Amino acid sequence: MKKQIMLLLLACIMLPPAILAQTGKVFDNLSLPSKILKGERKFAIYLPPDYETSQRSYPVMYLLHGAGDDQTGWIQFGEVLSITDKAIREGKATPMIIVMPDANTGRRGYANDIKGEWRYEDFFFQELIPFIEKTYRARSEKRYRAVAGLSMGGEGTFTYALHHPELFAAACPLSAATGPLVLEDVTRWMQRRGQDSIATDAQIKAYYERQSVLYLVNNMPDDKKKAVRWYIDCGDDDFLFEGNSLVHIAMRKKEIPHEFRIRDGGHSWGYWRTALPEVLDFVSASFHQF
Amino acid sequence: MKKQIMLLLLACIMLPPAILAQTGKVFDNLSLPSKILKGERKFAIYLPPDYETSQRSYPVMYLLHGAGDDQTGWIQFGEVLSITDKAIREGKATPMIIVMPDANTGRRGYANDIKGEWRYEDFFFQELIPFIEKTYRARSEKRYRAVAGLSMGGEGTFTYALHHPELFAAACPLSAATGPLVLEDVTRWMQRRGQDSIATDAQIKAYYERQSVLYLVNNMPDDKKKAVRWYIDCGDDDFLFEGNSLVHIAMRKKEIPHEFRIRDGGHSWGYWRTALPEVLDFVSASFHQF
Amino acid sequence: MKKQIMLLLLACIMLPPAILAQTGKVFDNLSLPSKILKGERKFAIYLPPDYETSQRSYPVMYLLHGAGDDQTGWIQFGEVLSITDKAIREGKATPMIIVMPDANTGRRGYANDIKGEWRYEDFFFQELIPFIEKTYRARSEKRYRAVAGLSMGGEGTFTYALHHPELFAAACPLSAATGPLVLEDVTRWMQRRGQDSIATDAQIKAYYERQSVLYLVNNMPDDKKKAVRWYIDCGDDDFLFEGNSLVHIAMRKKEIPHEFRIRDGGHSWGYWRTALPEVLDFVSASFHQF
Amino acid sequence: MKKQIMLLLLACIMLPPAILAQTGKVFDNLSLPSKILKGERKFAIYLPPDYETSQRSYPVMYLLHGAGDDQTGWIQFGEVLSITDKAIREGKATPMIIVMPDANTGRRGYANDIKGEWRYEDFFFQELIPFIEKTYRARSEKRYRAVAGLSMGGEGTFTYALHHPELFAAACPLSAATGPLVLEDVTRWMQRRGQDSIATDAQIKAYYERQSVLYLVNNMPDDKKKAVRWYIDCGDDDFLFEGNSLVHIAMRKKEIPHEFRIRDGGHSWGYWRTALPEVLDFVSASFHQF
Repeated sequence: MKKQIMLLLLACIMLPPAILAQTGKVFDNLSLPSKILKGERKFAIYLPPDYETSQRSYPVMYLLHGAGDDQTGWIQFGEVLSITDKAIREGKATPMIIVMPDANTGRRGYANDIKGEWRYEDFFFQELIPFIEKTYRARSEKRYRAVAGLSMGGEGTFTYALHHPELFAAACPLSAATGPLVLEDVTRWMQRRGQDSIATDAQIKAYYERQSVLYLVNNMPDDKKKAVRWYIDCGDDDFLFEGNSLVHIAMRKKEIPHEFRIRDGGHSWGYWRTALPEVLDFVSASFHQF
Repeated sequence: MKKQIMLLLLACIMLPPAILAQTGKVFDNLSLPSKILKGERKFAIYLPPDYETSQRSYPVMYLLHGAGDDQTGWIQFGEVLSITDKAIREGKATPMIIVMPDANTGRRGYANDIKGEWRYEDFFFQELIPFIEKTYRARSEKRYRAVAGLSMGGEGTFTYALHHPELFAAACPLSAATGPLVLEDVTRWMQRRGQDSIATDAQIKAYYERQSVLYLVNNMPDDKKKAVRWYIDCGDDDFLFEGNSLVHIAMRKKEIPHEFRIRDGGHSWGYWRTALPEVLDFVSASFHQF
Repeated sequence: MKKQIMLLLLACIMLPPAILAQTGKVFDNLSLPSKILKGERKFAIYLPPDYETSQRSYPVMYLLHGAGDDQTGWIQFGEVLSITDKAIREGKATPMIIVMPDANTGRRGYANDIKGEWRYEDFFFQELIPFIEKTYRARSEKRYRAVAGLSMGGEGTFTYALHHPELFAAACPLSAATGPLVLEDVTRWMQRRGQDSIATDAQIKAYYERQSVLYLVNNMPDDKKKAVRWYIDCGDDDFLFEGNSLVHIAMRKKEIPHEFRIRDGGHSWGYWRTALPEVLDFVSASFHQF
Repeated sequence: MKKQIMLLLLACIMLPPAILAQTGKVFDNLSLPSKILKGERKFAIYLPPDYETSQRSYPVMYLLHGAGDDQTGWIQFGEVLSITDKAIREGKATPMIIVMPDANTGRRGYANDIKGEWRYEDFFFQELIPFIEKTYRARSEKRYRAVAGLSMGGEGTFTYALHHPELFAAACPLSAATGPLVLEDVTRWMQRRGQDSIATDAQIKAYYERQSVLYLVNNMPDDKKKAVRWYIDCGDDDFLFEGNSLVHIAMRKKEIPHEFRIRDGGHSWGYWRTALPEVLDFVSASFHQF
């Protein structure tokens, strides 16, 4: 009889325990001090479901919001928590940390401005990335880092990965602004803002060569063509159709490998919420070494 | 004794392994102090599944009960917990806070009364909303706030959003009372209650212009027509058919965008429980920026 | 050995035979001679899946097209074949004959005109119905006859069933025109067409009292209120919102039992294709005696 | 002998009971006489599942093959039978006739050639379409006619619908050749074939203005912009990326409504088989009047 009880107890122990569907966590109001931008800069973060229970380090995706929005956009409108949790649960994404910095500054988005007075890009590379990698269990090699973003954040994604192919395994600009198509676009843009006298011709030229995605693509050195995996997506009704189509043509002509999608839709969160699972899948393929 | 142990163990083995999905939480007996209403006012609240594990702020929907009910109605009869949890789990609703105030006062529902002695509407805007946004991680911008309600609470929904289009992204009156159709309705209503001598003609006229949904719709300034997204629903067997149909006609003629549904059914919780998922979906579209 | 063969043969017999999914048939270009309309009048017909294999008679639904269309509309745009086949296969509709007459005449739709020169309604009742019931295995009692239609055909549905409640078990006007709301609408309509001098006041009044759905509803004798089962459906974005909502209000006030739906949508085939299964279900309930 | 009976019986038992769904029919080797092209021209046809049992007329889609292929391509490689049957069965396509003409001529595809000696386009409009509409129960109004095709057949689709917007409700070029981007492309193309002396400058110019999709789009009269519904699809790895992207940009700038897709893939039947269900869905929306 005792043996039978023992066996039953053993069976009990071997039963699967209660399974609590594990979820990731989001924080939408964190900040770090910035010397470069002279003040606190906010960011939001997604930590994957096993972040607290495990002791491992994770790859990181930087996920950039669009103009007029802030670090909470991808959480509130983009549903980054439930979409990423679901992708991880279904094996379509690898557990990763997602960092969403606030670029709601009324300045030049994710770029250093023309006169070098507002240096957001420097903040991003010199302060934000090191802070994240020091504060969280985030891996710091190129192969474990990606960048993605929408609209103005798509422009940030393009320029960051084009400026620093040595830092990103994958880049996913969505409905991206693509910067000035030609040099004159910069001047016109400054005139519209009554700022046409503030910068020298050399500064304008440098800005153009730094921020024009077409220029950067057309001048990419051959040995960098396969440095970053690209996933570019822009709706057929998006007002940014021209820049994205021209970048696709330029990349094809330069033989820069890239995925390009034009799906049904415009410049809207409905489009980006359906893009996010594809981005997670694409980025995870990089983090998985395929 | 051993046999009993055996049976317990057997029961243990035969139980399915528990799988606990994360769920939201409801509290049905909270309160806040009100100077305007001179006393404690009760409210109930729904907090979304990730409220405790994440650190983010949420949009808020105010959900109003009907006459003869109190703050527990939407929880007990309306199944707000399981319906909202399910909608969030299936991606049909965004995580939100739902606030259900008690308007079971025996007075004029959600309105300030004719003589301004009982000012529930002032309480709602000057005390309840600030209290919620201070006490919970609730976002306080218009784009993150909605109001919905049934019957008397549908009248509250109509009037609150018509009085304060600057405060609500979406409004969803269900099986709504629509207030006096004509000025004489107010007098008749007061005569029925033996209160015809208590208010002046000016007070009655002011009350009519404040509480008649038809009057408010017909006098809406052009620049407010698209300020609030409307979802209006009333069963074909509901005794409130006339007011709702006339409001639909008036809104169409004034070119005020609105969704309008007449489904099969009457003035019952069965109707409102099937309306709630649609309300959550509609409100979430606002909170998602589509 | 013989026993084994026997068993095998038995097994063979017991196997389900080949099942050929039976389908209904449509004919879109039939016609009948009309003395009243002085010429051939086209019609289309749907015969249910078992029409050829069985020898039974069927109930009939008359299904009316809208202005600018003809007898092929419900077949081509309305997918009456596949939708009815599916409803019958799934047990949601009873096998029935569906008759779709051509009212593409450039005249007053399904009505007799003001001066009685073009008498489509007389053709419908005195020639079409008898022709159908003589030519096809169609039952001829009221309990086996229904009428439905969209827009101008919804007006036909309303007026036919209001004029002849003794002939229809059920009537389903979809996105219906509801005729003149007031007497002056008739005069205005004739003036717009330069026909204001062709009819006498008595003719105009008679036409109004024959074609105004509101007038007919408001003057319905008490003993006819339950003579016809009504299913009325009109989208919230339909330009015919006012007439349908006012008919709903009038029927409620007159206590005429009716189903009324306002679903999401406008005046479009997408709306009517999703209405058709509900119509088939509602009409079949009549034909089934519930 | 008995053993053979046994085996047959066994086979009988082991066969799954046949369930025969109604299916469409394809014919891949039909022909019509052509005076314009001086000889018999082949075509293939798909007739929908209810073509033989019903007596109705159907809308028609002309479906054009690519270079090096013939009228059997869409049947053999494109699986037009099973894909269309499935789409109809699932309610995603309306029953339609699909006509696949043979343009495997070694000449200029679906175009009239430069010197007007080989006039395939004239054959298509003056002989093929009338033949189909006379021989089959095909409707002949614009609202019931569509054209689609791949590669060289995509060019045919573009030019036919651009030349004759009064004849097509919808046009779906897939992985389309888009003709000469600039006038010089025509000359270069002729030089490559050693034909540079055969045509006059006027003929070359006329050919360019007839066959350049960009030229036709950029010179479309305003009142034709909404005449045809467009669905354009080209893989991100397709060698025809440039023309399709430039047409998308040109159509956006001219405000010509169109659907545009870039999906993952190249110039292959795998791409076109996954495009076909979308084409059927898009074309059916036109045939359904939405």
